[in-house]
Formats: sequence, structure tokens, C-alpha cells
Amino acid sequence: MKPPIALLTDFGTKDVFTGVMKGVITGLAPGFPIVDLSHEVPPQNVLVGALWLHGAVHFFPPGTVFLCVVDPGVGSGRQILAAQVGDWLMVAPDNGLTSLVMERHGLKDCVSVQEPAYRLPSTSATFHGRDIMAPAAAHLAMGLPLHSLGPSLAQPVKLHYPAPLLRNGQIRGQVLYVDHFGNAVTNISGAMLPPGAELRLGALVIKVSGTYSDVPVGAPLALVGSTGRLEISVNRGNAASELGLGEASRVLVTSPMAQHPDTSEGE
Amino acid sequence: MKPPIALLTDFGTKDVFTGVMKGVITGLAPGFPIVDLSHEVPPQNVLVGALWLHGAVHFFPPGTVFLCVVDPGVGSGRQILAAQVGDWLMVAPDNGLTSLVMERHGLKDCVSVQEPAYRLPSTSATFHGRDIMAPAAAHLAMGLPLHSLGPSLAQPVKLHYPAPLLRNGQIRGQVLYVDHFGNAVTNISGAMLPPGAELRLGALVIKVSGTYSDVPVGAPLALVGSTGRLEISVNRGNAASELGLGEASRVLVTSPMAQHPDTSEGE
Amino acid sequence: MKPPIALLTDFGTKDVFTGVMKGVITGLAPGFPIVDLSHEVPPQNVLVGALWLHGAVHFFPPGTVFLCVVDPGVGSGRQILAAQVGDWLMVAPDNGLTSLVMERHGLKDCVSVQEPAYRLPSTSATFHGRDIMAPAAAHLAMGLPLHSLGPSLAQPVKLHYPAPLLRNGQIRGQVLYVDHFGNAVTNISGAMLPPGAELRLGALVIKVSGTYSDVPVGAPLALVGSTGRLEISVNRGNAASELGLGEASRVLVTSPMAQHPDTSEGE
Repeated sequence: MKPPIALLTDFGTKDVFTGVMKGVITGLAPGFPIVDLSHEVPPQNVLVGALWLHGAVHFFPPGTVFLCVVDPGVGSGRQILAAQVGDWLMVAPDNGLTSLVMERHGLKDCVSVQEPAYRLPSTSATFHGRDIMAPAAAHLAMGLPLHSLGPSLAQPVKLHYPAPLLRNGQIRGQVLYVDHFGNAVTNISGAMLPPGAELRLGALVIKVSGTYSDVPVGAPLALVGSTGRLEISVNRGNAASELGLGEASRVLVTSPMAQHPDTSEGE
Repeated sequence: MKPPIALLTDFGTKDVFTGVMKGVITGLAPGFPIVDLSHEVPPQNVLVGALWLHGAVHFFPPGTVFLCVVDPGVGSGRQILAAQVGDWLMVAPDNGLTSLVMERHGLKDCVSVQEPAYRLPSTSATFHGRDIMAPAAAHLAMGLPLHSLGPSLAQPVKLHYPAPLLRNGQIRGQVLYVDHFGNAVTNISGAMLPPGAELRLGALVIKVSGTYSDVPVGAPLALVGSTGRLEISVNRGNAASELGLGEASRVLVTSPMAQHPDTSEGE
Repeated sequence: MKPPIALLTDFGTKDVFTGVMKGVITGLAPGFPIVDLSHEVPPQNVLVGALWLHGAVHFFPPGTVFLCVVDPGVGSGRQILAAQVGDWLMVAPDNGLTSLVMERHGLKDCVSVQEPAYRLPSTSATFHGRDIMAPAAAHLAMGLPLHSLGPSLAQPVKLHYPAPLLRNGQIRGQVLYVDHFGNAVTNISGAMLPPGAELRLGALVIKVSGTYSDVPVGAPLALVGSTGRLEISVNRGNAASELGLGEASRVLVTSPMAQHPDTSEGE
């Protein structure tokens, strides 16, 4: 069975960048299904790319090869890695893009992609996705052993993840990104939420709900979304534009059952 | 032969929603081609989704499985349906999204998707496309009988379609949506048009033409487009922006050969 | 082995135009991989389509069928061509869209697509991509000889390419298009550049560099991009918006080693 090759990039779909990478893949790994995970990672935003990958890989079958290209350091000294992570294979620049997935699913093996035999004959200075990473992913899909691509890479780069702060029963978090529907996805995981959790955006207090239809059409709500993170939504509306939320907007989660030093300190 | 699985959603391509659904499908139905019909249905706009599906299914081979997710009611009591419609299979929320296709091609069989064995092991409150509908579509493609998914659904929800009004030889219609080129697609079918039909937008009178090049570059025209509906275009231009047309804009079709009470009643 | 069918259009991905073409292809050529090269050619911009195709085809395996639809003349007298170009097959309107590729890789054979047996049974006036070109491409992929589609077409239309002007060691060029990252791609090829070349945008002088990281974050640079053309970029920024560049913006390349009549003639 031919496993899929899944692509995650910040190339957009406007240009032929992605199409050309697929041309390279279809030539080297004919008949393998190519699946677009997304090409709309905000340009050069490694954190959002890492988060999207983290929320996606476990929905793919074992053996899937993930080709991930968000590569602001192309042409600098950054390395390219190929790795086995959980049951999957990954090819990406070594800039933290795959680090959240490695933490979650376990890094089994990792190499620095250096072997010229598995590149395109001519390599550009600006498009290693096409010239180095797509060929490496195609060869891995075809069964090339990981270590044929280059020497071991012991310590792939770790991403700085903006973790939420917990203090006195409150959680201070932030918006990580806004999705297509205008839902603002935060860095607060569902598992962190205290019973009766309320989300505070300035003066606005929103109870954490189970589903969109818990509130009237047009009303804001907070719920644990399909990625397991707390999201701020408006039922049938666009929370980001209606509530003025964007990447890095701060959010506060409180619970009526916890202490509230901010409000009990009076005077 | 493995029939395609065709996807129609309002997910956009910005996030990984669509990619994750494809991951689920490639795991459960390996080797079946996945075809993107569109992921740019305006968010939660069931009518536009239904119209696009209506204009598309008959171009796909028999046996194609359509996975359609425009689902403003996710998490409410709405059901999910799986149906045989004409020669095709469909999985969609039961909110009218497939109702125009059912009217046109005939509903052969329909069930309510309820069987837990054909879902992902863990089901979210907000992403039934990934957790319930994609697995159902993949299992159907693999040959699972429709009735294994759940009990019969006798009366799937019908969509309210904004039909044009015919009176005194005039047709009062509206714009249904604007396409990528700025063409404004109306609810008036080509078959309704009287001989010598003229389209009136306020004071502007446009003859119904056969093709774009019937008028000079930059001039407006009306023609029966590739979906069989009357469309308002500008030759090599953008009719929606140049003529101020959008969803629900009203249009009037008259014919010099019919009575014109509006203009003959005067004094 | 089934070669890919690669699509290049100006349809966007908003509507179902592209999806419907894929439906037609999957019906006539089941199991052939369909690869999206791009659907975001600026509407009706044949030159940009031709440039993107020119930069892409040689990354695809021999036998790939390119279905290219940028077709402002649909419904006029323009012909549709099918051609063997280098090791690839192409179907496109005869408007110059494939002419740059033909110049580069050699036109082996070309016909005018006219045979009704290889169209959809009913043909619209506005969507020949779906009704004529997609079926032709699918039949070619399935092995139909080129000449079954119609009579020879001896002189396909050539595109006017805006070539740069060379004079006194200076190159006067222009921006051809702006890519997803805001890089402004010019009509000046890397092979034309004199040693020590500098790019001038009004008063701004930019040295031609090897890679993005040759300059600080936020600084402009010029480099020979992955398509072999001189591109104007901003390291981790958006050159088009930051420098005010767009399609047809003029650029000047000079070299300190060449004469500079413009600056040496004064007073």
C-alpha cells in the first residue's frame, strides 16, 4: 500500500510553488497520493505551522510522509531534517516546525538531510522545498532508509511555545491564531480548565460552553474546539472581527470556585 | 475501479480542517482519489453550497461519493444523512445541502448516520465533518451498505430556494452568488427566457447574448452560463464590482414581445 | 504507469469550476493523478499563465498532460490546441498560453482540437475547459493519439513577451508579477546580469545577493529566484507592499564596471 505524502507549507496556492513540488514528487514517487494539509500557514510563521501539524498528524495513517516547508531561514546555516516521529515520517527545515509533534508523539530517529544523490541535480538558493525536501520526502515514501539521507541529528531545534500562566486559580493565556471561521484559538488546553470556567475579555465574561448552539445566534461563546484548545467563537458569526481578537490577544480564564485576588483585594 | 470521493465544504483552505478530513479518508479508504469540488462555500451558506453541488454532480462518474459539509447546526439536534441520489452517494448534514440534487436526480435511499462503529473513536462537539461524516464517506466508498450506517431517514430537510416570479411576461429574479470572475449568477434558468429577452438593472437594459465576445471589451452582457442559469457579466471585466451587484441583488427580465404593464399603464 | 494530469487555470478555487473539470477527468481517465499547478493565474492574464507554466513543466515527469485554461477569448474564433512539447502533452486555448514553453522545450507536434467524439455530449458557450479541454486532456492521458483530436495546427499563436532592453551596459526591465510572499519577479534573467550588478528603484540601490540572509531582516535585496529570474525581495518581509512594486513596475540594473551614460553626461 502506498502511504500518502502530506504537504504543509506557507506557499499559498497563488503561485506554482506547491504545484512544482508536486511535480517533483510525482516523478520520484509515482502513484503515491499527495494530500494538501494546508499551504496557508501565515508566511514564515513557524509557530502556527507547528500548531497545525500538531493538531493533524494523528488523523493520518501510519507511514504517512509529512513534507513541511515553512522556511524563513532558507539559504542560512539552518539544517534540513528527516525524522521518524511516532508512526509517521517527516521532512522539514530544522527550525522547530516539527518540534511540537516530536514532543507529543515521540522522536524515534532523526537525520540531517545532506546526501546530494537524493536532491534535484541543480539546487537553488531560495527553494529548498522543491530542490531538497520534496525529493527527500518522495524517496522516503518509496522506502529509502532514513539514514541514507545523511548523518544523525541528535538535537533538533525546539520551538518556543507561548505557554499559559496559571496563578491563584486563574489562567492567563493568549490567542495563537484565528481560523477561517473567525474562531480565535487560544493556548489554553481543555484539560486545564477548572469547573465552571469563565473566559474574560476585558469587561466581557463568557461561560465555557459545550457547543455553538448553547448560545443564541450572534452571541459569543468559548468552547474546547476540535484541536483540544479553548476557542472563542460567535454562534454563526466571526469572533475575531466582532470581538477585535487577533494573534497574541490576551485572554483570562477564571472560575467562580477559585480565589479571585484581582477582585477580592478591594479598596 | 475506485470511485472518487469529492469534497464540498465551507472550510476554506486556510486551516488544516480539510487536510485532516483527507487524512481520515486516506486511512479508511486507501487509494481512492480525493477530489476537491470546493472549500470556499461562503461560511455556513447552505443555499450556495446546494447550488454548487447541483451544478456539479452530473459531471462526476457514477459511484462518486460526495462528502458535503456546510454545517451551521453542528452540535444541535440536526441529523447527518447518507443517501443514494441518482448514481452517486452523498454524506451531509440534514439541512437541505443536498436537497436540490435530490430533486433533480432522484433520491433512491437515505439513512440517518448514527452507527458508532463507523465514526472516529472520539467525537468532538464541533467537527463532525472529521469525526463522523468523513469516516462514513470513506466506508461507503469501500463498499459498506448504506443501511449499515443507521436507520432510514424518510424526509430529509428541503431547502427554501428563492424561485423567480413570473408575471405578465416579466421575470423578477435575484442574484444567487457572484463567481470568481465577478459574474453574477441569477436564479433565472435559461429555459425560462422568452425570445428576445432583455435584462434590466435599474435604467440599464442588457440584451441576452450567446457569448462574451458578442459585446465589446468592457461592455456588460447577460448570458446563460455553464450552470444553465442567466448570468450578468462584463466582457473581460468584473460585473459584480462594475455594476454593483451582490448576493440577493434584484434583476428583471422583460421581452419586447410580451406585454409591459409597467410601462404601458402611464397617465 | 499513469502519468499525472496537471492543471493550470485562472478559475480560482472559490467556485466549483476546477472541481467540475476534475469530475470530468476522473470519469474519462480513472486513476490518473490530478495535480494542481495553480488556479490563481490572475483572471484572463495569459502572460502570467505562460510564465508560470514555463517555470514549472520541467519539474514534472515525462508524459505529464498539462491542461491549461486561461481563456479570455472563449466563444470567439480562437482555436483550442493539443500539442506535444518536449516530453509532455498540453491542451490549451491557442492564445499564446503555451508559447513560452514551446520556445524553450521544442514543439514536436500540434493539432487543433475539433473532433466532437472527444467532447462532452453538450457543449456550453462559456466553459470550454470543462466541455472540450478536460475531455481532450483525459483522452490523451489514456493514450489517444494527438491527431485523433483534429487537424494539424501549423502556427500556434505566439505571446508578446515584454523583453528587457539592454543599452550601454544597463538593463531596463519590469516586474512581471508579484508572488505570494510579495517578491516582485522581473523579466531580467539571471544569465543577463553583469558582474557586480546593482538594481535601482528610483533612488534606492540594491546589490544583487545570493540569498535572503545576505541582508538584515527587513532589508531589501535582489536575487536570482527559483525561476531563474531576478526578483526583488525584503528579507522576511513583503517587497511589493514595502517598496510599492506591482505588475509592470519598471526596474533598472546597472553595473559599476559598465559605462553609466545617464550619470556621466551631466553638466
